[in-house]
Amino acid sequence: MKKVAANPLVYEFSRHLEPRVRIEAGETLLVESEDALSGQIRTNNDRRDKTTMPFSNPVAGPIFVEGAAPGDSIAVTIHEIKPRDGQAATYTGSPKQLCEWLGTDVPHGAHVCPIRDGQVYFSDEIAIPYAPMLGCIGTSPAVGSPTTLPAGPHGGNLDLVEVCPGSTVYLPVFVDGAYLYLGDAHAAMGHGELSATGLEMAAETTITVELIKSKPLTGPRIESPTEIVTVATGCPMERSIAEAYAQLILWMEADYGWDRWNAYDLLTHVGRISVGYYGIGTVGTKIEKRYLGRGD
Amino acid sequence: MKKVAANPLVYEFSRHLEPRVRIEAGETLLVESEDALSGQIRTNNDRRDKTTMPFSNPVAGPIFVEGAAPGDSIAVTIHEIKPRDGQAATYTGSPKQLCEWLGTDVPHGAHVCPIRDGQVYFSDEIAIPYAPMLGCIGTSPAVGSPTTLPAGPHGGNLDLVEVCPGSTVYLPVFVDGAYLYLGDAHAAMGHGELSATGLEMAAETTITVELIKSKPLTGPRIESPTEIVTVATGCPMERSIAEAYAQLILWMEADYGWDRWNAYDLLTHVGRISVGYYGIGTVGTKIEKRYLGRGD
Amino acid sequence: MKKVAANPLVYEFSRHLEPRVRIEAGETLLVESEDALSGQIRTNNDRRDKTTMPFSNPVAGPIFVEGAAPGDSIAVTIHEIKPRDGQAATYTGSPKQLCEWLGTDVPHGAHVCPIRDGQVYFSDEIAIPYAPMLGCIGTSPAVGSPTTLPAGPHGGNLDLVEVCPGSTVYLPVFVDGAYLYLGDAHAAMGHGELSATGLEMAAETTITVELIKSKPLTGPRIESPTEIVTVATGCPMERSIAEAYAQLILWMEADYGWDRWNAYDLLTHVGRISVGYYGIGTVGTKIEKRYLGRGD
Amino acid sequence: MKKVAANPLVYEFSRHLEPRVRIEAGETLLVESEDALSGQIRTNNDRRDKTTMPFSNPVAGPIFVEGAAPGDSIAVTIHEIKPRDGQAATYTGSPKQLCEWLGTDVPHGAHVCPIRDGQVYFSDEIAIPYAPMLGCIGTSPAVGSPTTLPAGPHGGNLDLVEVCPGSTVYLPVFVDGAYLYLGDAHAAMGHGELSATGLEMAAETTITVELIKSKPLTGPRIESPTEIVTVATGCPMERSIAEAYAQLILWMEADYGWDRWNAYDLLTHVGRISVGYYGIGTVGTKIEKRYLGRGD
Repeated sequence: MKKVAANPLVYEFSRHLEPRVRIEAGETLLVESEDALSGQIRTNNDRRDKTTMPFSNPVAGPIFVEGAAPGDSIAVTIHEIKPRDGQAATYTGSPKQLCEWLGTDVPHGAHVCPIRDGQVYFSDEIAIPYAPMLGCIGTSPAVGSPTTLPAGPHGGNLDLVEVCPGSTVYLPVFVDGAYLYLGDAHAAMGHGELSATGLEMAAETTITVELIKSKPLTGPRIESPTEIVTVATGCPMERSIAEAYAQLILWMEADYGWDRWNAYDLLTHVGRISVGYYGIGTVGTKIEKRYLGRGD
Repeated sequence: MKKVAANPLVYEFSRHLEPRVRIEAGETLLVESEDALSGQIRTNNDRRDKTTMPFSNPVAGPIFVEGAAPGDSIAVTIHEIKPRDGQAATYTGSPKQLCEWLGTDVPHGAHVCPIRDGQVYFSDEIAIPYAPMLGCIGTSPAVGSPTTLPAGPHGGNLDLVEVCPGSTVYLPVFVDGAYLYLGDAHAAMGHGELSATGLEMAAETTITVELIKSKPLTGPRIESPTEIVTVATGCPMERSIAEAYAQLILWMEADYGWDRWNAYDLLTHVGRISVGYYGIGTVGTKIEKRYLGRGD
Repeated sequence: MKKVAANPLVYEFSRHLEPRVRIEAGETLLVESEDALSGQIRTNNDRRDKTTMPFSNPVAGPIFVEGAAPGDSIAVTIHEIKPRDGQAATYTGSPKQLCEWLGTDVPHGAHVCPIRDGQVYFSDEIAIPYAPMLGCIGTSPAVGSPTTLPAGPHGGNLDLVEVCPGSTVYLPVFVDGAYLYLGDAHAAMGHGELSATGLEMAAETTITVELIKSKPLTGPRIESPTEIVTVATGCPMERSIAEAYAQLILWMEADYGWDRWNAYDLLTHVGRISVGYYGIGTVGTKIEKRYLGRGD
Repeated sequence: MKKVAANPLVYEFSRHLEPRVRIEAGETLLVESEDALSGQIRTNNDRRDKTTMPFSNPVAGPIFVEGAAPGDSIAVTIHEIKPRDGQAATYTGSPKQLCEWLGTDVPHGAHVCPIRDGQVYFSDEIAIPYAPMLGCIGTSPAVGSPTTLPAGPHGGNLDLVEVCPGSTVYLPVFVDGAYLYLGDAHAAMGHGELSATGLEMAAETTITVELIKSKPLTGPRIESPTEIVTVATGCPMERSIAEAYAQLILWMEADYGWDRWNAYDLLTHVGRISVGYYGIGTVGTKIEKRYLGRGD
């Protein structure tokens, strides 16, 4: 199994960077990634130094997928996400959008949480179930290189709890080789990622990448053993919800034989919404697969 | 047990209407409500007639709570929500915000779904678990009378799946007697209530209303056996998420002894978001109670 | 000429209140209104006391227009807006949405500005041209009674600089008699009304009210000697801009003979946007009348 | 005077591209730019072909400014914007956000408008005053390469009518040489750029670029002979308005000696808002210079 080491740190989804590894469709890969704070928080006394490292969410890559061409898509199945250092770090900086209600007197916010026995220890008394996920996963656009802060049709900083072991993430291919990047692993994350910082951890992620020829996508899709999920991003969030649900309807129509308006009707009653980092308006809309087989 | 019959139909949260019933704090009450379509859809051939009934979401009330005064709050515990007619009706009108992606050729959308054996039959093959909830619950503001379309500090058209049997809804009191209204029951509802119409049903709801003296609230709160939930509303939804999480932090601080910024940190990792009708940006933010006892 | 005195203070657009005056279509009326701070700020040392008066933007009314019925509209021409006390008061409270960038250490914010010789004296050195307008103007909805804080299809707290002497405001009629209210005069106002408080003044406003039978409107419209303006409200503001421009296109189509898509094309190049209080997302979109006569 | 020819077409603000020209601070430059439709619309019968050219808003550049380094800013003064072909082209594609109110039956929308005698001829009868501006102007970020569709701290697709002859645009420098790009000239543009397409023209723009050492900026600023303007971008627009006004206050504080809260108070009464393409929530907030000299 090939391995992609985390360094050097990369903060964008760019077609201009040299591939770190080249793989065939169907290959399984171990990807090492640094944490979202670029490794600057190792103890509760450490501070985020934006002078030496002003960017966030370093990703590993680019991973060049042989044979991938514009108009194709790739399917990235996540098998496992393991913490590299046995701990997660979080950082509550200025509460920004909350200061209207809470003020701004937030104390120094570095907080390291040990991970052991399937739990993340927020404190001695409070254990959060270890539920790892990748904050960032994406391909390179044909023009432009988004940083690892926004999300978009290429994927990017999705921050959705559904990007987790057992799931497959479908991404459009815009350039030859796809130029896949991933990283920003979290040991767990709440809906909305309130402080913009999850339980950030350096991680080793095992993935398999499949190539789907001639399957253009308008944006990321996720499939878990029990659900299918479409993703849209951008403020205001209500617009992203509309767009994501519309894409879910179109998916049900194209791949599961549903009448468009029947799907619209059903999703009104059984659809679910998952919110990524709320500051950038990313949402996943989803439906359980058990509803999908009978839409005509 | 007193009973509040559904008629006449009421479409606002007003202090100007004559109380339908007067209760003491602690009383249990059976409240009958018409469905959100004002009973116009009884078969798949019926159509919504906005000429004779231009409003939506009729509620039962006002219920006058003896002793309730401005600055108090009331706690409405929902014991049971039963369908009155053994069926739910839904209506997919113009897809409005979706038409950018889906077009506008939506067919006549009346759709009646039988309810039996704990299932709502969307079709012969598709059964949705019966998971009843109230779309509308609220008190009367001190000034102004919101219709049953928006939500606000008084409650209103919340459309949150958490307003269900087993939960207690806390509402601020703005006028003597509180003037409680409720209705707009759904047999089930997806996050976001995509078409703005759930599985609407005429219902009989059993509630107990308690009075909490001298407990002003800035907005609705919900408590289930396992979670506490704060609610905020208004577009853009990302602002409502910020406001609801801020109120949840303040609740943890005031009633559970949490340090404000510690609560902020924790919610980042374990908070959950529930989306009401997405078109008006209503959200509930929540935390499991098992995390609450240890915040210092 | 009939006169409507400011007292008692009214803070909603309600069909439940007793008309203060009844007029025939075509009548001219002098309307006295208290300032938006309910008269609490008369010197720089005064403070806003929300305990005794928690509401904002008192309006004068309701004015009952004989013969007005649902489906009609009224045309309110503003002839003159005069300051009652020779001064305007403003009040910079907590900067709310700005505190993310500016912090919250705003000092006591009462500020009284004398009005004389066509200028409002912000200080001895800074004179702002007197450009009076009404912040609030609206009719009563058929159901519900909006407070004087939001805006809506009935008008309400528009805060648009176009509601000024020389302009005619068209409002839909939802109840018999229209129940017109107006007030919240400003001596001048910046786009967006940054602090939510303009140069508030008690005022005497002279208006003529005309009745237009069988002319339903979807929302307020304004006509000045040189422009026509449509209004939409609600966050996110980009959605209100879309709605307001759509209504302007429909107006050009219905009353000026324009092809819909030609109007759309033209407005892209010559449309103008005026922003009311930005916190509630109110906008006016407009076009100069000189472009209107030639749209086929 | 150096000249930058329009070709090859560039659709991003990238530090990876080879500089087209290198200039000293203080140099004046003639910049040729293709129109936003990449030159595909030359007659009313032409159609936009997104297969051969899927991107929009080609810009000329990068222009390397000798001596410019991260932490500096550049001042781009626009002297003149001349149409290259004597005409402007516009294109009304799918009305997207408007289709909720207007439907989707927009006809083929290519529309060429001759420019002569200071007028843009929308039709034989309708002349729009020639008021040229640049839709796109920006530097390269340190990480990432935004396409020419969004705007951001680097500038980008601002679409503000204030970026016009007589004005100076201040932009932050993030990489050595600044990597300035500009283009997307419009012969005129309405507020909001309703259809996302202005009166697009290939243009020759004359600029002078000055270098301001050690002057970091958080985003673009504009200075005209009579106004200063700050820019923020992103949906929801109300948030951008808050951010832009906050930056205007900080500018008044830093460079004009104003007390922060005094500036806040004044802008409430005399601030003005200019809306760029409304779909991406870009706004300029501004104040007339005549108010600036007396803020203490």
